[in-house]
Order: sequence, then C-alpha cells, then structure tokens
Amino acid sequence: MNNKLDPQLTQPVAEPPLDTQGFERPRDLMQEVPEDLVPLLELVHRPVVSARQFSREQLVQLCRLAARYETQPHLISRPLTGKILISAFYEPSTRTRLSFESAWHRLGGDIMSITDPATTGIAKGESLYDVAEMLNHYGDLVVLRDTDDRAIYEMLEGLRIPIVNGGNGVDEHPTKAMADVYTMLKWRPALAAPGSVAEADKVRICIIGVPGRMRTVRSLLLFLSRFAPGIAEVVIVTDVDQPFDPGQREELEEAGLVLRVADDLDRELPQMDVVYINAIAWVGDSFENHGARYRLSAASPLKPGAIVMHPLARGDELDRDLDGTPFNWYFAQARGAVFVRMALLAALLKSFN
Amino acid sequence: MNNKLDPQLTQPVAEPPLDTQGFERPRDLMQEVPEDLVPLLELVHRPVVSARQFSREQLVQLCRLAARYETQPHLISRPLTGKILISAFYEPSTRTRLSFESAWHRLGGDIMSITDPATTGIAKGESLYDVAEMLNHYGDLVVLRDTDDRAIYEMLEGLRIPIVNGGNGVDEHPTKAMADVYTMLKWRPALAAPGSVAEADKVRICIIGVPGRMRTVRSLLLFLSRFAPGIAEVVIVTDVDQPFDPGQREELEEAGLVLRVADDLDRELPQMDVVYINAIAWVGDSFENHGARYRLSAASPLKPGAIVMHPLARGDELDRDLDGTPFNWYFAQARGAVFVRMALLAALLKSFN
Amino acid sequence: MNNKLDPQLTQPVAEPPLDTQGFERPRDLMQEVPEDLVPLLELVHRPVVSARQFSREQLVQLCRLAARYETQPHLISRPLTGKILISAFYEPSTRTRLSFESAWHRLGGDIMSITDPATTGIAKGESLYDVAEMLNHYGDLVVLRDTDDRAIYEMLEGLRIPIVNGGNGVDEHPTKAMADVYTMLKWRPALAAPGSVAEADKVRICIIGVPGRMRTVRSLLLFLSRFAPGIAEVVIVTDVDQPFDPGQREELEEAGLVLRVADDLDRELPQMDVVYINAIAWVGDSFENHGARYRLSAASPLKPGAIVMHPLARGDELDRDLDGTPFNWYFAQARGAVFVRMALLAALLKSFN
Repeated sequence: MNNKLDPQLTQPVAEPPLDTQGFERPRDLMQEVPEDLVPLLELVHRPVVSARQFSREQLVQLCRLAARYETQPHLISRPLTGKILISAFYEPSTRTRLSFESAWHRLGGDIMSITDPATTGIAKGESLYDVAEMLNHYGDLVVLRDTDDRAIYEMLEGLRIPIVNGGNGVDEHPTKAMADVYTMLKWRPALAAPGSVAEADKVRICIIGVPGRMRTVRSLLLFLSRFAPGIAEVVIVTDVDQPFDPGQREELEEAGLVLRVADDLDRELPQMDVVYINAIAWVGDSFENHGARYRLSAASPLKPGAIVMHPLARGDELDRDLDGTPFNWYFAQARGAVFVRMALLAALLKSFN
Repeated sequence: MNNKLDPQLTQPVAEPPLDTQGFERPRDLMQEVPEDLVPLLELVHRPVVSARQFSREQLVQLCRLAARYETQPHLISRPLTGKILISAFYEPSTRTRLSFESAWHRLGGDIMSITDPATTGIAKGESLYDVAEMLNHYGDLVVLRDTDDRAIYEMLEGLRIPIVNGGNGVDEHPTKAMADVYTMLKWRPALAAPGSVAEADKVRICIIGVPGRMRTVRSLLLFLSRFAPGIAEVVIVTDVDQPFDPGQREELEEAGLVLRVADDLDRELPQMDVVYINAIAWVGDSFENHGARYRLSAASPLKPGAIVMHPLARGDELDRDLDGTPFNWYFAQARGAVFVRMALLAALLKSFN
Repeated sequence: MNNKLDPQLTQPVAEPPLDTQGFERPRDLMQEVPEDLVPLLELVHRPVVSARQFSREQLVQLCRLAARYETQPHLISRPLTGKILISAFYEPSTRTRLSFESAWHRLGGDIMSITDPATTGIAKGESLYDVAEMLNHYGDLVVLRDTDDRAIYEMLEGLRIPIVNGGNGVDEHPTKAMADVYTMLKWRPALAAPGSVAEADKVRICIIGVPGRMRTVRSLLLFLSRFAPGIAEVVIVTDVDQPFDPGQREELEEAGLVLRVADDLDRELPQMDVVYINAIAWVGDSFENHGARYRLSAASPLKPGAIVMHPLARGDELDRDLDGTPFNWYFAQARGAVFVRMALLAALLKSFN
C-alpha cells in the first residue's frame, strides 16, 4: 500500500470528445427531421410494454425529441418537478436503472427505488395486482424490470398510472431498443424517411445474437421492421440452430424486413453498415453466454464507415481496442439511452418542456 | 415467448375512479370540520412513537389537513424543499417506506434511504445512541422501522431531530392506524365530534385480528379510544385464547371503549358498520398468520353501507371479489395513508404550506 | 409489550447544544482566515483520490468554506440543482454514504445510489473501465467506496466526470481526514497559518491507531504533514510492531512531520492537545480490531483543554462517559464532515454558491 500520486491526478478531467463517435450527431437529426409532437400525444398516459406498440412516426419523433434534449440540455426546465418515479427493479440491474433514473432526474422529478425483491410484499406472497394498486397512489409512473416475463402483464391489470417495461425476462426491452434506433438515426438521419432512401443507400444490418433468447434483440428487430423500406437486409449471425421463436421470423417478414441467418461473421462484416453484437441472454435469474464464437476487434474486417453497436455490459465478444476507433458507436448508444428515455417519459406524462 | 400485443395497450390508462369507494369523501370531511392548526402546533419537533401521544383534537386536525392535501394537491407548494428525510427501514418494508417517501417528496423534500441493516454501523456493533447522534447531523427527520420494539426508544436517547415510528416489532405502528382513522372520518365525518353522535348513530366496529400480537391493531385501538363516545362497541373477532396483552384491555376500557371478544365472524358481520381485517402479526424477523379461519368475500353477510378496511398486504383472508364493491374502502385507506403522513410530517416540521 | 408512554415524548425535542463542543467554533475560523477561492479553482473538475493531492492552502480554504456553510446554512442557494451524484458504495457503508448524500442534497442536487455490488454489471464481469464510461453519461460526479484499493484507479481510466474516493480498501479516505482537519482548525484557527505559530503554542497530537492499516489515519497523517510547522510532534500510540507501511514514515518525515511511536497511552495523554483514537482497520470485506488495549474515558489523564477525535463508529475504545465533557469533539467532527464535503463537492463542480 504505497500508491504514489499519479501526476495526472492534478490535471482537470478531460471534457468528453464531443465531435467523435456520434456525440455531435444529434444536431444532424434535428435538422433532417421536422418536429411534430402529434404522434407523441398518442403515447400520453399509456403503458409501454412491447416494441409492437410504436409506429415509425412515434419512434422518429421520440428520437427527434431526444436529439433536442441531447443538443440543448440547458433548455430543459425540469417539467417533472413534483412527479415521482417508482423504479422497481426486481431483477438486479444498474445500467438500465441508472439510465431511467438519470432521465427522470434531468426532467426534474423525484424517485423512489425498489432494488431488492426480498424487501417487498411480493416476497410475502402479495399479488402483483395488489402491488399495482399500491403504486397507483404512491407515484406517477413505474419502471419495472422482472425476471418473469408475465409480471408486467399481471401488474397492468391493477395499474392506473403509466408503466414502462425495463426488461421482462427473455421477452422484451423496448427502451433499450429505442436507444439503438436513436443511435442509427443519428448516424443516418435519412432513415427517418425510409421510403425515400435510394436502393443503393439502403443499409445492411448485422445482428450477432439470438432473437428468440435475447430481449434486446427481440425488441430491436420489431423496431427495425418499422424502417424496413430503408433496410436492404438484416443478417442474424449465430451458431444456434433455432435462433427465432415460433412465429417471430414470420411476423418480422410480414412487416417487410428481409432476414437472413448466417454463421460466418467475418464473411458478412465487409458488407455490413451496422454491426450490432450481444452475447448475453437473460433467462430467469441467470444468463446464457452466446459470445464464445463471435468476436469483434480492430482486426475484424469491418466496412469503412460502418458503426458497431452493443447494448453493454460487454464481455470478451467486443474488444476494447475498438473503443478509440470511429467504429465505436456503442458509447454514444449508452449516452443516447438517457435522452431517448427522457423523451419517452416526457411524452408519457405530457411534459415535453 | 410470443406475447401478441393486447389492443388495450394502445389505449390510455383509465383515470382513477374518483367518485367511488371513498376517493371523493375528503371534501365532506373538510366541510364538516373547521380547520384549527393550534392542536398541531403541539406536535412541532416531537418524536412520534406511540398512538398514546395523540389527542382526539390532534387526530381530527391531522385528518382534516390530510383531506386538504388530498382534495387540493395542486395547492401544495413544496414546503419541505431543502429538508432531508432519513428513511431507515431496518425491517424490510415496501408499502410503508414508499408511503412515507411519497409523502415527503410531495412536500418537496429530499430523501436518503437505509434499506439494508447489513450495510450499517449497527451491523458492526454500533449503538443506536451513536447512530442517532450521526443522524442528528445528516438529516431533518427520521422514519424508523425495526423488528426490535425497543430500538426506537434507544435511538430516542441520542436524537435531537424528530423521529417517526414506522413499525416497532410487535408494539405499535401509529401512522398506519392514523390512516385507518382518516378512512373512518372520511366515511363518517360526524365521528370527528363523537360526543354529538346520537345513540342510534353510534358505530359498531369489528376488528378481525389479535390486539396483543398485531402492532397495527394495537395502535388503532388506542386511537379508537379517543373516539369512544361515538362508538357503540368494538368487537374483536379471533380464535386466540388471550388476544390482549396484560393491561391492554383495561387501558382501553378505562378510556371508555366498549370491547367484546367473539369468535363467530358471520354472526357479527350483519350488525357491523366498520369491518377491519388483518391476518399477519410481525414477530421478530418473521410473521405469524392468523388468517386461516376468518375470511371476507362478496358472499360474507356484510351490512349494507358498511366499509371494509385492511392494512394490506392481504392474503387469502380478503377476497378480491370485494374489490369492485362499495364495501371496498381498503384501497382508499392505502391512498389516504400518503396524505395523512404528509399532514403529520408537515406538522412535525411546522411546514403546513 | 406494554410500553407506557414516557411523558418526555410529549415534550419538543431539545435543540442541539450549539455553544458546546465545537459547534459554535466555525465562526472563529471564518474570522481568522480570509476567504480566497483561488486555490479551490485548481480543484475544479478534478478527481479526488489521495490526500497527497491537496496543498495546505486548499485545505484551509475548503475548511473556511465549510465554516461558511456551517455558520450560514440559510444562505446556501442550492447551486447543484439539476446535477446528479452517483453514490457508488460497493463496500457497505452508512455513515460516509449519508454524509456525502446529505452534503449533495443540501447543495440542491439529485442522487442515484448503488449500495449493492451484486446488482451491478461488475458482478457480471464488467470492467470498471466500462462502468466508468457508463457513469460519464448518467451523472455529474461519482463517490466511490470499494474494498479493493485499486478500483478507483481502474475506474479513473475511463472516467470523464469527477470522482471522489470514499474509502479505497486499506489505502486512503481523504474526505474523512478532511473532516478531521476541519475539526482541528475550528478548535485552533491559528493552525491555518502554521508558520506563525509560536514554539510554545505548537500542538502535540496523539494518534491511537495503525497508520499502515487504517485508511483514515493514513490520509490524516498526509494532511497533518501540510501543517507540520505548527505541530510539535505526532505520537502514534500502538502495540503493533510495524505500524507503518514501507516508506510511509519517511514520506511524512520528509514533509517535516515529527513522528514518534509509543505504547503507553496514559503516559502520553497529559501532554497531548489533540487525541485521535480509532480501533478499526478495514481489510478487504472484513475488519481488524486494534482497540483491545487502548481506551479513553472520563478517567483518562487528558490534558485540560485537549480535544478527543474519533472517526466513528466507535467500539469499547471510546467510553460514552466522555460524551458530556468538553473533550468531546468527535460529535462536532461528525457534524463537520457534512460541511467540509459540501465545500469539496462545490469546488469540484465550481458551484460555490
């Protein structure tokens, strides 16, 4: 124990690199897309359970509002002052919880957290219906994460305040996928009007993951189907035999998405504009790791100009040597998650600022 | 995993049913009882440990203030801005904790929570006296729940800021009982002046529970004794041989309460105006369930116009088929708990708004 | 269970004894030391890891600012409104956590707490570098406590917002030691200009503890070395054979501190002006108790006018019979910890008020 002082400690911390890796891009999105809050009014006082609930117009306007918050943080006037968020994370989480809580605080609201299921009436056998009835009176909005994918549906029965799905078992994680869409729209604002994208400009998206096991991928694919006219194809890279749930692929294809399954990542990469990688699938109280075979690093044959996305936390599947490259949009993605959640929460409570 | 979207999800959440089950009633209480803050001034900067501390005038005015908060939420001007609540729940709890925290936040204050006894100095052998000395400097008011009924008394020795008992072992839970009184006064505002209640209008109250084992019942009975002139009798329905602690029944009878013990619930119900049911007794780190024999449901022979109360969380003793009936005042009771705690906290810090 | 009401409960809680035991002293410090914020500007947006980072001028001005906050609490205008503290206590703590959170709240900021390491990505194998990257986007400042003394250094690599060391293993606890310095400067404001202290007025400091094992003592000694010209000697009272880490004693002596090791407490006490006692050394997830042999009580041969300090929580080494004596400056020390942390946090975010 004799840590001599690093001279660097006496230097001020560096400011964030605003002009790299997508941090500057929200301005482009704001200029490309005219503001129109009308589609967001349909979200007022609604529960947010599934990516299926959202139209392309709503997604685009949520991202547009997020871009406004990200670009002009000093113009936000704390419109949620006096409102209380109940942050109920019955499945342990830090990243998603802090992202929601940060979003709520930046809008001026107060927060009550439940982070330990053992301390709740649920542990004593209380029904989620009764918990919901209690929450109606104690807060203004609930964010719920639960290992059981049915929990949010049970709670909905008794709930009269909006609830947002913060991850329900292996089912969905719509707000995480919303951050993915926001990242893509910042990178390529033209996708906001996918019908106008020329054939040659349509994007190729590679998703390394298992759509039937990973809630983030499930929700993302549903959102991508809203932008199908601007997407040349979505390639699922996996070594799992049945990567889709029954009916899942069909639903996406009916919505216009061109899907292909492949197992050789490096053969696909040179053609891909967007590369999304995830290795973790949450199943009950535990998780499966699907990352052993596929890895991205600075040595991967990535297409120039392509972007790499990752929901984080990462394991070995995403090498840190990509962090300093222009391929790294996963940090911007994490950053954007706060702003897109601000936009959603503001819309749900009709407090746009 | 293929949750098709429930079309209902695209509908806005229903507004709460304000005109049923007691939600509209606070207005009646406000009209019946003239505001008089003088009795509340005696509470300023006091510890709240036992129901014994409160006079009828104080209870009535706290409920009157709660009714004002419930009726006119938009008039509350965040009088606790800059004040810090220390929410110390050494015994796990969600309902009571969130209710206090919601009350404090609605008055504009900030909160620091202690939810895990293992993280505190107490786990390292620190005395509650020393913990109290620390809390004096870090916050403006403490809410304490502890499995040990002596803990709050030990902490009091060192404390110079107000403390509120949020449940101390099998002893008391005065603020929960305050919510019960608030519920009854909303239902029957005339009880606020019990000496003026005509003989025929005196209410019959049935308490299904064990006064010597249940802290909520112990505190409620003490409060009911303040309203004895308006109460024809209180019937304790139980199959426990010695439902009272030594001296408990005598204390209540000396205060004027007419008590009777019975064991056949359905024979009593047709005469009862207020039916309070609870099955759980907290004893140390665990609980006893006394609910096996007595149950309430829509099939119970309840008197028309009667109200059912329950401290929640409920088990099998209270059937969900009562939820949609006019007997259900337990949801209004849970809702009112926030407002009556706001009134108490505002009084303790002389921040009435 | 038949707690009769203590009549004292109906009395208002006593106000704190403002004029004893150092509570009144911040005014003296304010008068003795002219305000000069320039040295604090060098702290803006810096990480705070080690006591080594601070000059005497910075310490004096931080204490001066703390004295202003303590003396004029009503003049604080919530300069951190809209700023978010991430309170990350991967090692359980209540005292330090609440002190930081109280300081942040009093400056008007919002807080997100992480109190359970099991709920974090770290538990899933996420690197602290990635956690840091996440925190960059979710908050404005991090306070970290970790059982591993290297954790804060690893996190620093990825962090672009200020971090404050809230105790890193057996290494350091600089803000706790800052509260010790604040206590001493309130007691003897002349120490703020130690070069002007007359030979006869130089203070003798007794530290009962193990500098190489106790982080609070390690940081305190580094700070004391900044005031060496005003200190006659520092006596380390211990029965440990090698109380210093390799190089630790040499570093302090090079900085001008006169150190002596002794093992007979009662022989030293009559000459000592400041007596600092601590018995606990945090090592990994557990702690060592070095308090068996040395105890302070009202029967100890303390020099008249001397002050006793203790980082708290205390065990048997500090008898409660000292609490009511003028030797007790440990409560004032705990109280001051909030104000000196306010000063530091305000400086880091350049929000002096």
